[in-house]
Amino acid sequence: MAKRSTRARARRPNATDAANAEALRRLFAATPFFVDVKPAGEVIPQLGDRDLLHAGPPLADWSAVRRVGALHGSILGALVHLGLAKDKVEAEEIGASGEINLKSANDHNAGGTYAGVIGRKTPVLVVDNRALGTRAVAAINEGRGKALRYGANDATTLARLKWIEGEFAAILGAAVRLSGGVDLYDILVQALHMGDDGHSRQKAASSIVLNALAPFIAEAGFGARETAAALRFMAGNDIFFLPLTMAAGKSAMLGAEGIKGSTVVTCMAANGNDFAIKVSGTGDRWFAAPVPGVKGRYFEGYRARDANPVIGDSEISETTGLGAFAMAGAPALARYVGGTVKEATRLSVEMYRLTLAEHPRFNLPALEFRGTPSGIDVRRVVATKLTPLFNTGIARRMPGVGQIGAGFVRTPLACFKAALAALAG
Amino acid sequence: MAKRSTRARARRPNATDAANAEALRRLFAATPFFVDVKPAGEVIPQLGDRDLLHAGPPLADWSAVRRVGALHGSILGALVHLGLAKDKVEAEEIGASGEINLKSANDHNAGGTYAGVIGRKTPVLVVDNRALGTRAVAAINEGRGKALRYGANDATTLARLKWIEGEFAAILGAAVRLSGGVDLYDILVQALHMGDDGHSRQKAASSIVLNALAPFIAEAGFGARETAAALRFMAGNDIFFLPLTMAAGKSAMLGAEGIKGSTVVTCMAANGNDFAIKVSGTGDRWFAAPVPGVKGRYFEGYRARDANPVIGDSEISETTGLGAFAMAGAPALARYVGGTVKEATRLSVEMYRLTLAEHPRFNLPALEFRGTPSGIDVRRVVATKLTPLFNTGIARRMPGVGQIGAGFVRTPLACFKAALAALAG
Repeated sequence: MAKRSTRARARRPNATDAANAEALRRLFAATPFFVDVKPAGEVIPQLGDRDLLHAGPPLADWSAVRRVGALHGSILGALVHLGLAKDKVEAEEIGASGEINLKSANDHNAGGTYAGVIGRKTPVLVVDNRALGTRAVAAINEGRGKALRYGANDATTLARLKWIEGEFAAILGAAVRLSGGVDLYDILVQALHMGDDGHSRQKAASSIVLNALAPFIAEAGFGARETAAALRFMAGNDIFFLPLTMAAGKSAMLGAEGIKGSTVVTCMAANGNDFAIKVSGTGDRWFAAPVPGVKGRYFEGYRARDANPVIGDSEISETTGLGAFAMAGAPALARYVGGTVKEATRLSVEMYRLTLAEHPRFNLPALEFRGTPSGIDVRRVVATKLTPLFNTGIARRMPGVGQIGAGFVRTPLACFKAALAALAG
Repeated sequence: MAKRSTRARARRPNATDAANAEALRRLFAATPFFVDVKPAGEVIPQLGDRDLLHAGPPLADWSAVRRVGALHGSILGALVHLGLAKDKVEAEEIGASGEINLKSANDHNAGGTYAGVIGRKTPVLVVDNRALGTRAVAAINEGRGKALRYGANDATTLARLKWIEGEFAAILGAAVRLSGGVDLYDILVQALHMGDDGHSRQKAASSIVLNALAPFIAEAGFGARETAAALRFMAGNDIFFLPLTMAAGKSAMLGAEGIKGSTVVTCMAANGNDFAIKVSGTGDRWFAAPVPGVKGRYFEGYRARDANPVIGDSEISETTGLGAFAMAGAPALARYVGGTVKEATRLSVEMYRLTLAEHPRFNLPALEFRGTPSGIDVRRVVATKLTPLFNTGIARRMPGVGQIGAGFVRTPLACFKAALAALAG
């Protein structure tokens, strides 16, 4: 009896293991390429004129927006920017009236950077996972500090965004089409050898993608003034690559979704109210818990009580084995998020206990070229109670201000427990 | 008596310490800027039509050239390239006849990359150490593999060099003049946080300098085709920054030369026959010893007996606290030079025993942001018998082939002993 029981226990994990092996096979086969810049509506046809895609799981209502200062500021600014409201007062009325449909970006193969939203006309970076035939998008990053996606929405912020999503998007789109596509994982592999974590620190990847695109930007048929302005914007934006990482990670995860019985996490995201995950075996279903706090470092003059609640889809980086999972290779990041290199390395290495594999391409020279921990397993998370960490920027709670710090977050165990229960049920 | 003797011994080092403190003060105050691209003759007026500047201490004669395959190949190619010979046969005759004056680049405030030589018409990268009013130069890097500076001298190599030193040099010069100057130490500080060692690995610095210059290249008044070609060449050359590091280091060291009594090393260089050093307190005098061997990794199909003897002025990197002295921050380099990250870190940390200070600007996140070991002290080298290490590329011994590997070199103790004796004498 005891023997049969042991074999029976051994058999059940095997079915899950096989499902997980398939999820990992697809995940590790991913080859995301940056291929185009297009209005979101052309890539996501179901996106209506009054739809806005936001980070994290679906928001309950307008009061859920108002609880999250940066998101509130971002949506008000976006409504003005997209021509849906004449000013922020009207934008507030429109938002409160329920005339705007707020939808989860992740449910539409898109990623929302922090509190940034995507409308039908928003130009998006289009990423094709050529190996698996999946496509995902994210909006262009505005750079650090005062940016709409951090809730800043004054005239200067919106004027800059108008240029970014107008002239700059046109040049970038023309250049990337001329290039035939930019291999994003090739860049991330290099960036992990250059101090990036593939999430909060994107300095190397941003520099490399400019190197790759600069000749095509010069050949794209624009004047010297426009060409120089585009190059200057990219050169001055050391997180330019962040949305490319997000769309790349999302396109990879889309290939690993919906495998019956798989306990691999395919999405982690937050909307300022809730943090939630998706798991391969349960498809599109969200498992949510209240957003946890950030442990971080604040820019001069700010402190924890000024912080906006955690929000963003960029945790897709950690889900694919980057970000906090690769901090052992990004010692310069440790100070930025407020810790020591030793502690960042310890936390990062801890993630191997939650994951099923070491990434075959993403590796860390500082760990003698060991692959990054990849394939978060809800079983392991629940068994160890060591939940995944992720890196994040911090915006000010008050709408309209922008970034005030950076740090990392320990995700809530409840999501992983709920997912495991659903998989077993 | 014993007491007086102790005090006497304590007094003598104090004079040296004061001289060294002044040398370090000047060294650490350096602010090298890339400011122009000009024919070498315009920066070094004493350079005649038949003068060629080479790496390391002065060469004895043409037979000293013939012993060093890559140097031999490089000089023959350079004589054709500079229009001083109609072909390599005539170049050999000219070389053997003694009609060409071979001079040490370091004696003319220049740096020779590996076996590369600089003639009067060679365009050079001009670097001004604005804080100390010193100026140094180095030639444009051709990239990895078959390059004249590695001894390759076939028609393809020379045709590419013609474009590099013609159209490309003109665009680069126009761009850097428009920029008002590029702060090279600012880039190196960033690059050390991005996996570069500041010598053999220049991937981050090369990427960053392209980011900095790209907008000015677009504004320099050239056509889209020429602009794109220049950007493409830079983007494809991950050691583009190497001669900028060398000229920056030389300009910094020029400020620290000739301080009476100082035991700080101001130059380390090799000409394929000899390795030699200069020390602040002894000014322009060289202290030489036979070149040591390289411990390294060879590209597919090559081995140690194919290697050209050690040559190059790029050890100025180590002299300023970079290169092998910063390998603890460049784990990805460890494999390239054929070792483990742990061993590279150990060797790099060993250099703190030979140096007087930690660099106030160059620091290593992997060592919790400790400054790199800087200011090599001949007293410490002789006392510990731990001589400085440097990183290097390896060319094939046979002229005309190019790079076949990379590794590191332990410098010979004899130079340091000779320098210490001269300082005491």
